[in-house]
Amino acid sequence: MSALALPRTIEWVGGLEGCVRMIDQTRLPGELVFLECHDVDTLWEAIRNLRVRGAPAIGVAAAMGAVLGVRGFTGDDRDAFLKQLDKVSEHLAASRPTAVNLTWALERIKKVARSMTGAGVAAIKEALLAEARRIRDEDEAMCRAIGRHGESLIRDGCGILTHCNAGSLATAYYGTALAPMYTAHERGRRFRVYADETRPLLQGSRLTVWELMQAEIDTTLLCDSMAAALMSRGKVDLVITGADRIAANGDTANKIGTYGVAVLARAHNIPFYVAAPTSTFDLSLSDGSRIPIEERSADEIRRGFGKPTAPPDAACFSPAFDVTPAGLIAAIVTERGVIRPVNRESIAAIHAE
Amino acid sequence: MSALALPRTIEWVGGLEGCVRMIDQTRLPGELVFLECHDVDTLWEAIRNLRVRGAPAIGVAAAMGAVLGVRGFTGDDRDAFLKQLDKVSEHLAASRPTAVNLTWALERIKKVARSMTGAGVAAIKEALLAEARRIRDEDEAMCRAIGRHGESLIRDGCGILTHCNAGSLATAYYGTALAPMYTAHERGRRFRVYADETRPLLQGSRLTVWELMQAEIDTTLLCDSMAAALMSRGKVDLVITGADRIAANGDTANKIGTYGVAVLARAHNIPFYVAAPTSTFDLSLSDGSRIPIEERSADEIRRGFGKPTAPPDAACFSPAFDVTPAGLIAAIVTERGVIRPVNRESIAAIHAE
Repeated sequence: MSALALPRTIEWVGGLEGCVRMIDQTRLPGELVFLECHDVDTLWEAIRNLRVRGAPAIGVAAAMGAVLGVRGFTGDDRDAFLKQLDKVSEHLAASRPTAVNLTWALERIKKVARSMTGAGVAAIKEALLAEARRIRDEDEAMCRAIGRHGESLIRDGCGILTHCNAGSLATAYYGTALAPMYTAHERGRRFRVYADETRPLLQGSRLTVWELMQAEIDTTLLCDSMAAALMSRGKVDLVITGADRIAANGDTANKIGTYGVAVLARAHNIPFYVAAPTSTFDLSLSDGSRIPIEERSADEIRRGFGKPTAPPDAACFSPAFDVTPAGLIAAIVTERGVIRPVNRESIAAIHAE
Repeated sequence: MSALALPRTIEWVGGLEGCVRMIDQTRLPGELVFLECHDVDTLWEAIRNLRVRGAPAIGVAAAMGAVLGVRGFTGDDRDAFLKQLDKVSEHLAASRPTAVNLTWALERIKKVARSMTGAGVAAIKEALLAEARRIRDEDEAMCRAIGRHGESLIRDGCGILTHCNAGSLATAYYGTALAPMYTAHERGRRFRVYADETRPLLQGSRLTVWELMQAEIDTTLLCDSMAAALMSRGKVDLVITGADRIAANGDTANKIGTYGVAVLARAHNIPFYVAAPTSTFDLSLSDGSRIPIEERSADEIRRGFGKPTAPPDAACFSPAFDVTPAGLIAAIVTERGVIRPVNRESIAAIHAE
């Protein structure tokens, strides 16, 4: 078992007087630069401008940001302290308004503060830092559990295709879709990962390829349109992707292009796996047709690389996600275990545990 | 029947003292600029630097370039004239060494010159210009024949997906895969074309979308990875693409990504058509496994838009073409008629006509 040569996405360094240290993802894949946030405004800007991205990583950042925002509070007026915490949380929640993990993490922090009715401000500050660190550690632990449950899918010498970035950079550490690969790698298995570049925003080429190379995993980049040719040459033994939302029947919304990969995998008799925490399931949605699909700005296609690559007034079709029907998914790897086959009953069962 | 509002890709303007006028495709899709070539060096540079591209259009350019290169010949020494023609042809042939149409067109020009044994130089010059114009006109006529044979595939109100640019810009005029669309449009039919952007070189977004919009056809651009979602929403009634080379059994090599589109079309019960002239067939190849597939530079993926979008040392998989098996092709539309079903016998039959 060898350690993973991959830097931490985000962590709190030192004690209460320390700082938040994160990989500045806007500098990737060009260079590895760490951003140190000593105040809440620097961290707010980092969330806003995607220096840290991915729902779990944003949640960790927000929780740590709340600590940055209240640690300088002077005096021992508990009510005034809670008021400042509310204000800081509200500010942080506005940095990426649609990120669910962000508000979830802030609620956890506020709940700890409110629950410590008899404590002094100094003790609450320490407890909030501990809670923020716990949110980070729990996320890493969950990713590592996905890795343990999924690593046996990866045999020595195999080829794995992935799409988008459901990697360490999207989480506190270790990733979701990439977690089984990291675990297999740590256990000494050798394999090759093929990463779709993932148009329009190129999370595959910018982020996935970067982090796999950092981890010293054999990695090959391809354009999304090349996956079919790769499969027909027999290079792909399995596909693993992440998920943005999974309905009660197993239909899975993920980055646009995932559904196409799943259809191609089926046509080539290649198993298609999803790896995601149980928190990704939305059991209130009976199937994938209920998942709302955001339409993105046409300019992400028309001038996605800083210069025009299409007529400026061209009409575009640009959904952010697509839905892969459960029938195309061989298994879903979660932190609680592997769901296989994927259906309403097996999904209900893992959530009942 | 309305005229097509689409400028000519390349033509000879005026008499022997005229010039070659072409759309400068390196300026697309930003602006429509015509390049006038009055000498062979300007035209050589235009071929070399892809101001004119697409096998048929390059053939026309080369033939006209040969005329530019010899029209200034003074005197009436036929042997010296033929020598200069050989020299000019050799020079032009080196502008894009792998373009088969280029040498084919130059051979046609040289053959005319050699066959006129009793004629004076002035008469030969006129004959060469006439031959160059004939090569252009024949190409357009062939494209229009593909349009006539294929237009009935396009019903009023339908949605058509295409990949790459097998359009007017790749030919003298009117295109191959796009020809049936132009004919249907000229006949007043209404439909929508969806154009894959076609990574890595974006011929779809840069060229196909531009020319369809010029022709006032309802056009929507999408990333290659979005085609599956588009199909699952019921927006695509048929697919038409071009071809780079077709084997004797109908297996078809075309721009990378075409095979994936064909697999997706089959999974959604959408007919997949190829439109290409009979000259695209290589009957010496018994099937698609014999078609050599060029591997492109990794930097077309890693820094395809002028700036790095992946780690500079990332390994890449970047085939220029893929092969679609005949079994996935509903029909091949040629200038001689429609090949359906696509198999060894039907292909042999159309070539025997």
